[in-house]
Amino acid sequence: MAELEWIDGGGITSPGGFRAGGVYTGVKSYGDESRLDLGVLAWGEPTLVAGVFTNNAVVGEAVTWNRAILGAGRATGALVCNSGNANTVTGEQGTRDTRRMAELTAAKLGLQPQQVLVGSTGVIGRLLPMELIEGGIRDVELAEDGGAAFARAIMTTDPRPKEFAARVRIGDATYTIGACAKGSGMIHPNMGTMFAFLTTDAPAAPAWLQSTLRAVTDRTFNMIDIDMDTSTSDTALLITSGAAGGRAFDGSHPQATEFADAIEAVARRLARAIARDGEGARALIEVIAQGAASVEDARRAARTVASSPLVKTMVVGRDPNWGRVMMAAGRSGARVDQRKASVWIGDHCVLERGTPTAVSLALVSQAMADEEVRIRVDVGMDGTSTATAWGCDLTEEYVRINADYTT
Amino acid sequence: MAELEWIDGGGITSPGGFRAGGVYTGVKSYGDESRLDLGVLAWGEPTLVAGVFTNNAVVGEAVTWNRAILGAGRATGALVCNSGNANTVTGEQGTRDTRRMAELTAAKLGLQPQQVLVGSTGVIGRLLPMELIEGGIRDVELAEDGGAAFARAIMTTDPRPKEFAARVRIGDATYTIGACAKGSGMIHPNMGTMFAFLTTDAPAAPAWLQSTLRAVTDRTFNMIDIDMDTSTSDTALLITSGAAGGRAFDGSHPQATEFADAIEAVARRLARAIARDGEGARALIEVIAQGAASVEDARRAARTVASSPLVKTMVVGRDPNWGRVMMAAGRSGARVDQRKASVWIGDHCVLERGTPTAVSLALVSQAMADEEVRIRVDVGMDGTSTATAWGCDLTEEYVRINADYTT
Repeated sequence: MAELEWIDGGGITSPGGFRAGGVYTGVKSYGDESRLDLGVLAWGEPTLVAGVFTNNAVVGEAVTWNRAILGAGRATGALVCNSGNANTVTGEQGTRDTRRMAELTAAKLGLQPQQVLVGSTGVIGRLLPMELIEGGIRDVELAEDGGAAFARAIMTTDPRPKEFAARVRIGDATYTIGACAKGSGMIHPNMGTMFAFLTTDAPAAPAWLQSTLRAVTDRTFNMIDIDMDTSTSDTALLITSGAAGGRAFDGSHPQATEFADAIEAVARRLARAIARDGEGARALIEVIAQGAASVEDARRAARTVASSPLVKTMVVGRDPNWGRVMMAAGRSGARVDQRKASVWIGDHCVLERGTPTAVSLALVSQAMADEEVRIRVDVGMDGTSTATAWGCDLTEEYVRINADYTT
Repeated sequence: MAELEWIDGGGITSPGGFRAGGVYTGVKSYGDESRLDLGVLAWGEPTLVAGVFTNNAVVGEAVTWNRAILGAGRATGALVCNSGNANTVTGEQGTRDTRRMAELTAAKLGLQPQQVLVGSTGVIGRLLPMELIEGGIRDVELAEDGGAAFARAIMTTDPRPKEFAARVRIGDATYTIGACAKGSGMIHPNMGTMFAFLTTDAPAAPAWLQSTLRAVTDRTFNMIDIDMDTSTSDTALLITSGAAGGRAFDGSHPQATEFADAIEAVARRLARAIARDGEGARALIEVIAQGAASVEDARRAARTVASSPLVKTMVVGRDPNWGRVMMAAGRSGARVDQRKASVWIGDHCVLERGTPTAVSLALVSQAMADEEVRIRVDVGMDGTSTATAWGCDLTEEYVRINADYTT
């Protein structure tokens, strides 16, 4: 695939045609003005944005709003987000508050309310303090280098903003892809939710954008969303300003796959950063499942191992208790032949075709001391399907963070 | 239903016709002779035992052995269990070791090897130290009051043995039901596994025993086995000695339902004790789901809420962040109408038909300070189906225990 040139300090406003900003309103951490909590991203002409949302049956008001807009095929020109409150399970007032956020943002930018997407992340079941939100929308200033402020404004318990941008040369043209995310309760996606926003200046057909985002999400963000506490507000958006001009990407574009791969590479870096920043995490866990009878089986096995509390505590304790990897693969729903299965921790094979090896467990323990711990499991079905998932270890700090989230 | 008379200090040898014993071999905690780790339970005439096993695709050698015996409809006369090593993913040697445990126990008791069931619980992927096991089977002494020693021998990280017995009068006859269990890694069933053994002196037809155990398990033990880290060795057995004599229970027995209810009551007490003793747990969490469109939906919602890490950490922090209950119900797969859903913490309604109430969150927090925290969620489908699930809170102690399990 085309090589990516990462842009130092880049983010969602790195591609041309985007402006953004972020302000403090007090919704997230009243009185601490360093904690921005309301952000707006705007792009030139309203355009059809690609979006993928949580599959939780309970959803935030913003998700319902966005789904209706995208489902109706409406073009949009801006995104307004707040952190600190998810506006979920808030009844009719919650519905009105989301609409009000869109209306105020639209009025500010000369758009229609239905041309504004909304994101809300934070605690569930509390009404939005609308006077704070309204002040924030009024005050926020948008700038062509405002991506960093926006990235800060969507954070909840994230230890740092997550934003990246890269240039990629496809044929004769150079495109820029920007991205930012929040989601530090990611490992069991928290009330805090995963937001992943991707921007680009490449022109693209809406249907191609949507199918590309769906496929990329399945291999990146969905491989860290690990079937545990799926948030009610998870949202991934892929927005193009088209500012780079030229031929639009669609299914018949000769370099469509090459550009989709570039988008996936940026998304993968974002996904890994989300997992790495998991609440209380010490280490990133990368799990590769192979030898599976189907891609779906490989995905199940990789995700289940990456999300197993016992695997997570094994990593935090640097405890070479690799039997937990087999236990998790076994309960994943994937077909597993334990007589032919193999497991590696780092480079050490601990189980070889159903039989434990004589590897030194002290060495295995050392391999778990890194900031990235790689676990590979061959489920023994002699298949060629593989999948990769990411998680982080489960520390006492995770418990402390989540025991104290609202109080 | 018939009233149960609980027997002080009762256990699996309380019903007539059972003998048991437990010894120290060193498999679990070498050098600490107070930690029994091998137990044998024997009943008079070989009989067809009812059994329900883990649905993990990776299973322990003992589960494979027992399934083959019960699947072939063979009568058995004894059960030998060790703790400290699950004999799982141990290759051909593991298969031979399980068979050897059965052979030695059979020789001691005058049975055939295929008349002996086996249980192994503990770390995965290590060969059993058979010289220790063999010594234990040779040395263990069986007695009519040996249930307590057996209950100690199957413990892993359980803080205390779990054993109960009750008498129940059905018509003109009195029957005794005994029970013991292990499973302190229950909340995400640990390598440690759940073992639940029920004994009775009531004569019963094998098919009725099996269908009764299956139904009881679905409403008790399976409501604490919360779709997370399902052990590779989970085993529930229901064994009758028939010593009480009289008419055997079967589907046409007029009091069959009454006796099945008594068995369920004993199993429920055991299930609650397992959840209460969850690794590091401070509180038992009881979750009742109601208003569901089907029993399966109610079960899904109750289990998912009881097993959610964010609900567990909410309880340990006494944090009235009840939105997490809705989040967990929403991702459970159950149909949920968030506009009509309600949530109670203890006796406090925090969400009433889709709208947050004005209840004092300080009061809600107080309700979470008890050793038993009750959460009720009406999923808003206006159905009549309900289900109850049990879990425990997730503490920093859980992380400590599981980070250090093998080392």
